[in-house]
Amino acid sequence: MPRIAVDAMGGDHAPREVVLGAVDAAEAGHDIVLVGDRSRIELVLGETGADVAIADASEVIEMGADAASAIRERKDASISVAARLVSSGEAAALVSAGSTGAAMAAASFLIGRIDGVSRPAIASMFPGGKIVLDSGANLSCRPEHLVQFAVMGAALAATKLGIERPRVGLLNIGEEAGKGRDLEREAYPLLAEVPSIEFVGNVEGRDVGSDRVDVIVSDGFTGNVLLKTAEGAAKLLLGLVVETLSGPELADKMAAIVPALGDVRHRLDPESYGGAHLLGTMGVVVIAHGSSSRRAVANAIGMASDEAAHGLVERITRDIGAVHSLAGA
Amino acid sequence: MPRIAVDAMGGDHAPREVVLGAVDAAEAGHDIVLVGDRSRIELVLGETGADVAIADASEVIEMGADAASAIRERKDASISVAARLVSSGEAAALVSAGSTGAAMAAASFLIGRIDGVSRPAIASMFPGGKIVLDSGANLSCRPEHLVQFAVMGAALAATKLGIERPRVGLLNIGEEAGKGRDLEREAYPLLAEVPSIEFVGNVEGRDVGSDRVDVIVSDGFTGNVLLKTAEGAAKLLLGLVVETLSGPELADKMAAIVPALGDVRHRLDPESYGGAHLLGTMGVVVIAHGSSSRRAVANAIGMASDEAAHGLVERITRDIGAVHSLAGA
Repeated sequence: MPRIAVDAMGGDHAPREVVLGAVDAAEAGHDIVLVGDRSRIELVLGETGADVAIADASEVIEMGADAASAIRERKDASISVAARLVSSGEAAALVSAGSTGAAMAAASFLIGRIDGVSRPAIASMFPGGKIVLDSGANLSCRPEHLVQFAVMGAALAATKLGIERPRVGLLNIGEEAGKGRDLEREAYPLLAEVPSIEFVGNVEGRDVGSDRVDVIVSDGFTGNVLLKTAEGAAKLLLGLVVETLSGPELADKMAAIVPALGDVRHRLDPESYGGAHLLGTMGVVVIAHGSSSRRAVANAIGMASDEAAHGLVERITRDIGAVHSLAGA
Repeated sequence: MPRIAVDAMGGDHAPREVVLGAVDAAEAGHDIVLVGDRSRIELVLGETGADVAIADASEVIEMGADAASAIRERKDASISVAARLVSSGEAAALVSAGSTGAAMAAASFLIGRIDGVSRPAIASMFPGGKIVLDSGANLSCRPEHLVQFAVMGAALAATKLGIERPRVGLLNIGEEAGKGRDLEREAYPLLAEVPSIEFVGNVEGRDVGSDRVDVIVSDGFTGNVLLKTAEGAAKLLLGLVVETLSGPELADKMAAIVPALGDVRHRLDPESYGGAHLLGTMGVVVIAHGSSSRRAVANAIGMASDEAAHGLVERITRDIGAVHSLAGA
């Protein structure tokens, strides 16, 4: 079982919910080291009676801090200590619910990028298992970055979903080749040459709900808008459904239906997925939502542990190498 | 009642569904001239017994043609003849379910841009009345274009929804000022100075379902992705709801619920909205979906007629002028 370094101090409800989530994950069999303020971590651990390893870190990087300079200045920040545990091989993966920027900076500076990856990217999961990247790490991209995102996202689909040759689509405003901005028009022929993916061509925002693609690649600005729009639209619609079904003539039917709608809500709940993967660094990195509850943290740890066990980093390393040989040929 | 020029030859189901939609709109009291192949139009009109004015046009611009050159070469295309009716003042508005590119080119070249507008933009409606622009006319934009979109979208919110000082948000990946690409960071302070809008700052994709904004401005690539993602997510969720509620233990409840879900589907149906507005030209232009049915065409004509009656073009002209005085001050 790979060891997971958990940033105990990151997140709106840290360290409490993070420590409790780690306790649940440890009870499920995961190997965890909690990184942060020992006395505060032990206080929460004491309530549960559980025994989880602790690595000391005396500093914290707050949400909203300038991530890159904070990582440089606070050598003993919990996220940095956790990243160094991965870098040294003492842990195989890093989980944080703290600042996304700090996690990205710590992973890039302290764990380091996989050879051939110029831009680590954030891959988010969609209901049904679809992977969308980049979802916010790189707001402006060049075509070769999208190619790297395709390779990395496909590697995640392979290790996580067991799809040997994942179908990858390029997010665009129409399906025909030639659509889009210079970015998409130039990336399209490059993507068609990537050996580790099945390139299905352009896909549109509506394909978040389709069966024709496993991985959607995009610049980080557009990918972020896609994810948040899908979330907003789903909430809007669920609200409309509840409102409609709550009319007086259907009220008696609702008692039976509310639990079923709760199940739909659960299937759409980002907490069920635990977090997003930062892909492209020399260790598995999972970034959980800042508001993560105990359950979300436990799920994020499970995700990180699974990917470390399934060799995600090794697969990206191999497939990125194949793209580089191609470019060099 | 303003006269509406309807491109009878544009759309997947033209001229039949277009003519039938125009007949319905005429019966609802709208003043219409159908533009296209007289004999084909009369054939459909003959079935209904209705009498709608016809303007002859001998050519058609197919979907997928290079729009700008097609408009230059086919002087007698139905979309061009319809645009010239607006340009000459014989009609106040143009409705087409044909190629969006052709409608944009015809409107720009033949009707002409409002003074001060550098880029006409496509404004789409969302359930609940929210307006999103640009939704596909301008894939790459400069900050001053987003300012013009804000002014034009707010004018539409004012004339269509009766909101005197519409709340406008800038589509971004976070709410804090300073988020986003250069485009958003530079547009933000400019938007804060626009007198005809209430600038609410950055909004996110999830605000498609929120109550804090009336108009969302964005470059056309991102706006298009937002619209199609919302559509895809809504369909995905509605499918999940139906699937969940169709389980055996709830099957007996479904008979009562199916009609209610149909009502939700109807409220989300783009056909109910009729089409998108092309804003910034010297006439009201409504672009209906290529697959528009009779009902969608009738709704698009109603939209165009309402906006012409409510002085949309005059309002944009006035408010764009105010922004230019500001820039010149």
